[in-house]
Order: sequence, then C-alpha cells, then structure tokens
Amino acid sequence: MAPTTDTSILIFGASGDLTSRKLIPALFRLSQQQYLSERCPVIGVARRAKTHDEFRDEMKSVVSARLGDKFDAAAWQVFAKQLFYQQLDISTPSEYSTLKSGLESIESQCGMSGEPTRIVYLATTPSLFAPAVEGLNAAGMIPTRELATKLRVVVEKPFGRDLKSAQELAAQLDRYLHESQMYRIDHYLGKETVQNILLFRFGNAIFEPLLNRNHVDHIQITVAEAQGMEGARGGYYDTSGAMRDVLQNHVLQLLCLIAMDPPSLFQAREIRDEKLKVLQALRPGMPGPIGNWAVRGQYTAGLVNRQPALAYREEERVSPTSNRETYVAMRVAIDNWRWAGVPFYLRTGKRLPKQVTEIAIQFKNPPLNLFSTVECDGDLCDLVETRPNQLIIRIQPQEAISLRFSTKRPGMNYQVQPVSMDFAYDEHFDAQLPEAYERLLLDVMRGDSTLFTRCDELEAAWRFLTPVLEAWESSSSSPDFYPAGTWGPPSADRLIAESRALWRTPR
Amino acid sequence: MAPTTDTSILIFGASGDLTSRKLIPALFRLSQQQYLSERCPVIGVARRAKTHDEFRDEMKSVVSARLGDKFDAAAWQVFAKQLFYQQLDISTPSEYSTLKSGLESIESQCGMSGEPTRIVYLATTPSLFAPAVEGLNAAGMIPTRELATKLRVVVEKPFGRDLKSAQELAAQLDRYLHESQMYRIDHYLGKETVQNILLFRFGNAIFEPLLNRNHVDHIQITVAEAQGMEGARGGYYDTSGAMRDVLQNHVLQLLCLIAMDPPSLFQAREIRDEKLKVLQALRPGMPGPIGNWAVRGQYTAGLVNRQPALAYREEERVSPTSNRETYVAMRVAIDNWRWAGVPFYLRTGKRLPKQVTEIAIQFKNPPLNLFSTVECDGDLCDLVETRPNQLIIRIQPQEAISLRFSTKRPGMNYQVQPVSMDFAYDEHFDAQLPEAYERLLLDVMRGDSTLFTRCDELEAAWRFLTPVLEAWESSSSSPDFYPAGTWGPPSADRLIAESRALWRTPR
Repeated sequence: MAPTTDTSILIFGASGDLTSRKLIPALFRLSQQQYLSERCPVIGVARRAKTHDEFRDEMKSVVSARLGDKFDAAAWQVFAKQLFYQQLDISTPSEYSTLKSGLESIESQCGMSGEPTRIVYLATTPSLFAPAVEGLNAAGMIPTRELATKLRVVVEKPFGRDLKSAQELAAQLDRYLHESQMYRIDHYLGKETVQNILLFRFGNAIFEPLLNRNHVDHIQITVAEAQGMEGARGGYYDTSGAMRDVLQNHVLQLLCLIAMDPPSLFQAREIRDEKLKVLQALRPGMPGPIGNWAVRGQYTAGLVNRQPALAYREEERVSPTSNRETYVAMRVAIDNWRWAGVPFYLRTGKRLPKQVTEIAIQFKNPPLNLFSTVECDGDLCDLVETRPNQLIIRIQPQEAISLRFSTKRPGMNYQVQPVSMDFAYDEHFDAQLPEAYERLLLDVMRGDSTLFTRCDELEAAWRFLTPVLEAWESSSSSPDFYPAGTWGPPSADRLIAESRALWRTPR
Repeated sequence: MAPTTDTSILIFGASGDLTSRKLIPALFRLSQQQYLSERCPVIGVARRAKTHDEFRDEMKSVVSARLGDKFDAAAWQVFAKQLFYQQLDISTPSEYSTLKSGLESIESQCGMSGEPTRIVYLATTPSLFAPAVEGLNAAGMIPTRELATKLRVVVEKPFGRDLKSAQELAAQLDRYLHESQMYRIDHYLGKETVQNILLFRFGNAIFEPLLNRNHVDHIQITVAEAQGMEGARGGYYDTSGAMRDVLQNHVLQLLCLIAMDPPSLFQAREIRDEKLKVLQALRPGMPGPIGNWAVRGQYTAGLVNRQPALAYREEERVSPTSNRETYVAMRVAIDNWRWAGVPFYLRTGKRLPKQVTEIAIQFKNPPLNLFSTVECDGDLCDLVETRPNQLIIRIQPQEAISLRFSTKRPGMNYQVQPVSMDFAYDEHFDAQLPEAYERLLLDVMRGDSTLFTRCDELEAAWRFLTPVLEAWESSSSSPDFYPAGTWGPPSADRLIAESRALWRTPR
C-alpha cells in the first residue's frame, strides 16, 4: 500500500501517558513500515515550553526504553526528523494563532503544499475537547464545509458520562465540526481479531447461516482484567467504573460486531449503520427491576495470580465507602428478527483471575440426542449429557478461534467426546500483528472511519445504559462483593442460570 | 463392556490370506482386550488335514511375525487355547456331519451349554457361498426361524458382479437364511473415522443445518490407491475392476453416510433404511449418454512415489489387451429434497499418487464478496477470488477433520487468507484406534448389523451401476489412459469442470 499523502498530525496532550506509550510508538512503526510519508509532520502540543529537540529526546528515551533491543536507532533518526513540538495552553483561545503560524512554518519546512490535511488528536481530558475545538475555530483553522475532511479530530473515550453529558459534548463539538470530521477512538476496534470478526462472519459462507435464533442458544462476551487500581488510577476510576470504562464501549462494540447484519458494502457508513441497528434493538434481558438483568460487583481483598490484592475500597484515591462498580454482568436481548429470544450475557470486571477478552457462541443442542457422551479426567470416565457446540473467538491474549464439537471416542461403542478444533493467529502468521493504534492512526490518515464510533452509535449505547447507571448511583446499597481473583459475585451466576448455562471459564 | 456370550466362530477358508492377516489377528486382539470370552472357540475350517496344534502354530507364526516386538506371547497362550481346526471340503455336503460333530465336541470341551450361537465366516471365493450354506443345511446346522440369530453367516465382497448375479446369489442364500442372519462385511464401515461421520453429523447441532442443497456446492469422495497389481492380484482384478472392487461398495457406502437423513433411532434398521433411501435416489449426474457422467480409466506405465510402475496391461495375469478399468470417476445426483441439484463427484483408482480416502464437502461462496483475497507462496502474494469453505473428512491415512475458512490476513487492509482448522484423531486420542475387523467381528458376536450391508442396499447399488458396467463391457473402445502416478485421465477433469471445480489434491 502506498504511504499516506501529506498530512500534519497534531497531538494535543503530548506530555501525557498515551502519547509516549501508544501514539508515538505507533507512528514510529508506521514510519518504519513506509506507511508514513516524510511529508507528514507529527507535532506534539502541550503547555510547557520545549524545543523540538527536547521533545524528540524525550520521546526517544521512552520509546527506546520500551523497545529495548528491538529499538532501531537508524529508523528513529528518520522518524525524528518529522517530529516537532508546539507550546499551547489548550484552554486559551488566543494562543491558537501562534499554534497556527508555528504549524504553517513546519508544514512548509516539510515540503507540504496546497491546502494541508490536518489531524488533531485530542489526547487530553474530555473537559478540554470543546475548548480545543473552539481555539481551532478562533484561529481560523477549521476549514469550510466543502473542505471539511481537511481537518480531522480524534477523540479518546470517555465520550460523556451518560446520555445527557454525551449529548451536550456532541452539541458543543457539532457547532464547529461535521460528523465526518470526528474520529472517536475505541482502541479495541483496532485489534486484528476484532476486525477479523467481520471477515470471519462475512467472508465465509458457513458461519452466517448458524448465527441466529434458530441455532444459537446464547452468547457470552467477556472482557476480564486481572489488574486493579494500579498507581493513581483509582482517582479516575472511582468516578467512572466498569460500566463506563469498558462495558459501554469495548463490550458493546464486540456485541455489535458479532450480532450485526451483513452490510451491503464494506464501508464506514454501511457498517456503522448496521452496528447502530443492533444498539437500537438492545433491550433488558429480563422483565421487572433492573436487578433482574444487570448486576454490579466490587472486589474485596483476595489473591490474584497468587499475589495478595487489596480490596477496591482500600485502593489509593478510592473512597473507603465507595459503591463504585468494578464488575458488571448483564443479560441483554437484541430485539430483532435475527436474535429475538437469544440471551446475550455481557460481563467485565477488574481483579478477575486473568486478563482475557472473548466471545463465546453457544449453539443449541442437536434436536435429538442419538448418542451418549463419555468424558474422562485421566482414567476416570463418566457418562454425561452431550455438550452443545461452542464457537469461541478469543480477542486477547493469543488471538484464536476455536470450535468445540463432538466426535466419536475411539472404541467399540458410539461414545461421544467433545473436542476442539483451534485456529491460533500466531501459529499461522509469522508477521507481527499490528498494534491497534497503528491501524487506527493510519485509518484517520486515510480518512476511513469504519473502525470509529459514530455519534448516533454512542447515543444509542448511552440511551440503553443510562437508566442502569442512574439506578445504581441513586441507590444507597452496596454492589455485590466478590473476592479479588474470582470470576465475580454469585449474583452474576444466578443471572446466567436463567439459561441453564454457566459463565465460561476462559482457558 | 462385558465380554460376549458363548459363541463359536467358524472361519471357512482358514488357509487363506484374509484369515491369517486380518481375522485371527483381530480375534486375538479382542481376546487380549477381554472382549472375547474363553467360551468362544475359534475354529479354522479348510480342506487340508491339520491338527489343532498345527493350525495354532501356523497362526502364531504369522501373527507373531506381523506384530514383531509387540507380540504378547503370554496373551497368545490364552488365546491359542480357544483356537481349533476342522477339516472340510466346503463343496461336499456329506462332510458337514463330521464338521458338526467335531464342532459339538469342541463346544462341550469349551464348556458351552444350551443351544449354541454360531458364526460362520465365509472367507472364501463367492462361488462357495451357496455350497457352504447348503452343506450347513444338509447337516441340520441351520436353526429354526425362531432361533434364527443362533446362526450368523458373514460374507465378504464381492456380492455378485452386477444386479442379476447379486440377485441370484441372494436367492440361493435366501432359501436357507433369513436377512437377519446375513452379515455382509464392508471393512470400510468398521473404520473409526467412517463411524465418526454419523456422530460428527448427528452428534453436533452446527453441521447438519449446512449439509444440504442450500449451502453445499458439491461433494467429492475419493478412494485413491497407490498400489497396482501386487503379485497375483491381477488375475482377480482383471475380471473385476475399480467399479466392482471399490466404487460399488466403499465409495457408495461413504456417499450414503455423508448424504443420508438423520435416523430416528441409532439402530441397524433405522440407519440402513436411511442409507437405502440415498441409494434409491441415485441418478446420473448429467443427462445424455453414460460418458457424460461416468469415466473409466486405465493406467499406463509411469512413476509412483518415484518408482517406475508397469502399465496395467503389462501386469502379471492381466490380458495385454485388457479394457478393464483401474479408475472410475462419476458425477452423480441424489434426487431428494435435501440434495437435489448438488453434484456428487466420486472417484477411485489404482496407481494414483498416494493412498488416501477422503470426503470433501465444498460449500457455496458467500452470497456477497465483501473482501478481496490475498494468497502467498513464500513472499509472492497475489490477489485472488475468495475460496469457498471446505470441510474435509479424511478416512485414511491419519484420520482427521479439517475445516477451511477465510480469515483476515494481519495487516492494514481487509485481505482474506484461507486457513484451516484441523482435528487429527491421533493427536487427541492416545488409544490405538481399533482395527476395522475387530469392531466388525465384535458386532457380529453382539448381533449388531448396523455396520453391515443389507440386501436391499446392495441391490439398489447394483441397480444404479449395472447399466454403466454393461455399457463399458460391451464397448470395444479402450478406457481413458492415465500414467501411473497421476490423478487419473483428463476426461475426469472435464467431468468436474461442469461445476467450475477441480478435483481436490489430497494432502
């Protein structure tokens, strides 16, 4: 593929963690792979005064420390030439004219000509999104409607805290930017295996006929983290929680990808239209009070990977009486022709036994049980009921697809034994899988918004989840506690027991 | 599973190859595994005079030579005690009273009591089937109808040469034996992977919805042999050929198992009823002359596994002007609700590049080609059309199930790459797979005829194939030649080209 055309990439919040840990490394790798033209300056923007070289040295030390032996100093030399720094107090509109002139000088220095394409990556707190866009507007940096795509603004979650705040934020940005200029990043969508979900479903003829209410018993989506509140993260987390941090974005996006209807074209608009239809069809998985279909948990002290772990309420910068949820499990329904009646079980949490993200599709049992099943643990064999087929799509770690089916246990009888066929990404492809941010940054440069969340998707997700958040936050009762290092509170098990099912224990 | 109850096993043709190579080793292994009660005498029956001990020594030397280090002499000692010999000229009815008294003495010596169950395994040429049954009748060894299952007669293929001779043979045996007493062995049906076809299809919920005209493009069944006419085999083969030797039995049985509807019970009658329905629905795969849908080939000199191989007409005991087919390819249709319009391509042959038996189910392409495909050979990558999904069931060697599907090639674009998920029997199961004959002999002892061919199945198969055989045998033209070590004549490729498909090259 050809390198991208001339584009300036401005990173607002260049002194932050995201810039040095993710964005600069991703841009460096794009440069190494010839995806980033030399005429694409990357400009760090932050409040402190800093020379270009100081910024380059800072970035170099972080990136080289991170890559260790793999750091290619010569390649860095090439990349560093297109790395620049501009001082800016984002919330002071008058400073944007200086930004503009500095930027124009860098652009001409890089040999860019004509109307420049500019990407502004807002790696800042959400409260600076609106001031940043207002500042750009004040300096005349927002192009006319006809040239809208010459300015692209990338924002990181959270996009609001609930339906109302998300709508307010959208309204603020809408005054200056068109939807086609907005790139809301959910880095999960940049992962190879997540992108593969669509190809797996629509590039094969044999899975799609099975993915509907006729054949699927239920679907489980798990985004599990072993981590707790590392360092100062508790401060942010205690105002956010598992629902806003993971379920509202990552989990619902996975749900959309596995449940959506086939798009008529493989293009941003058509794909996001289909995802939106899923979000709009979301319904509580059980009638009655919210507690019937949504469970919140909070970890107490326990053992994770054999290491003692603090209770959430004992973590740094967390209120000792906090009722913030560190775990969510939900049973939801997708009320459409394809999925009516099929429960979707969603869960995410901190301090679970391992870090794993997977989608597990459990199919119905065969209509007729013609065979008996024998299962063995070493030499101990037992006759049990046939186990239903399962298709597991593991997003991380070790991206893989696994199909559980029944086969004949060798021997003189027709005994069933469940086995798995596996496809592991890393066994089949030598190539290193691209990092999510590499892919997503390249997509912004290409102007491809397929893997970014559209405003209406976001609104539909908040519309569904806000009543749950409000119920929890207005309640004085505690979340359901679970010891760190376990798979969540017993109430989550009761939730799934409605389907005569168990949560899968990811391997 | 409990050992079988008291049963005498008589092997007619005990000096033949089949007895020493297959039957005695299988019975020995059943004895080792406690499946064969001590009160089940195994009596070799042949024309020459021989003592029990001479027969035991003969069998021991063949079996121990075959097993080498794995031969368990102590276990043989146990088994040899139940091994006996009876002299008999099968075609002389008067000798059967001697057989009977000898047998009765052995049975009482073994502690058997009551009305004995007897299995007569006719490991002889088909011309002796009728005389053997007449002799048993003359000696009063055929039980009354009520006790019919006390005598079970096992016969090896060929069961006739065409519809007429098969019907005549059936009529001869019918005079004395009921269908429930007849066990027509097709040793292919005793193979684990063949039995697994039914469990794979009906023990899983996800494959059956795909196995029909809505989703399947076509199915290929291949039974390939690398061997030619080893030793004196040419004499038999030149009167028989690939159609009678393999296609009429093994290939059609595989076809039945992959195409049949689910039985209502997993029992002999219900399963064979469903297989019969498939055979009765067989139709020529193309209108017009037989040559449009059936191809016969014969190998010329060539290289097999890099070794020079003779032309068929140069083989020992083969006529130098023989038009006998050593290769058959057919396109057939199964004219029923499930399969109408789906071509089944069948092929079998001698002197093909390797010995392999497999069923390849090729699914239709996705209705919409949303993605492009890149295929790589080393560093050379090409954009090609999406390849359809394939499900491969390999019967031998190395029993396996393999599913080809498309996945995302890691990288910055949505490029499709076909990959395979594999399930190999020997990787999942430590246990040695039982030999086909072990399983089948045990089934005869149990009185389970599920894996044996019923008379009406046989007749339906012959009814379909006889017109083809007659057309070939009345023609003066030669078969289509193919060099030994290739995958058959070009006419077979033209046959499958009707489906815009290629014969699969088994790996």
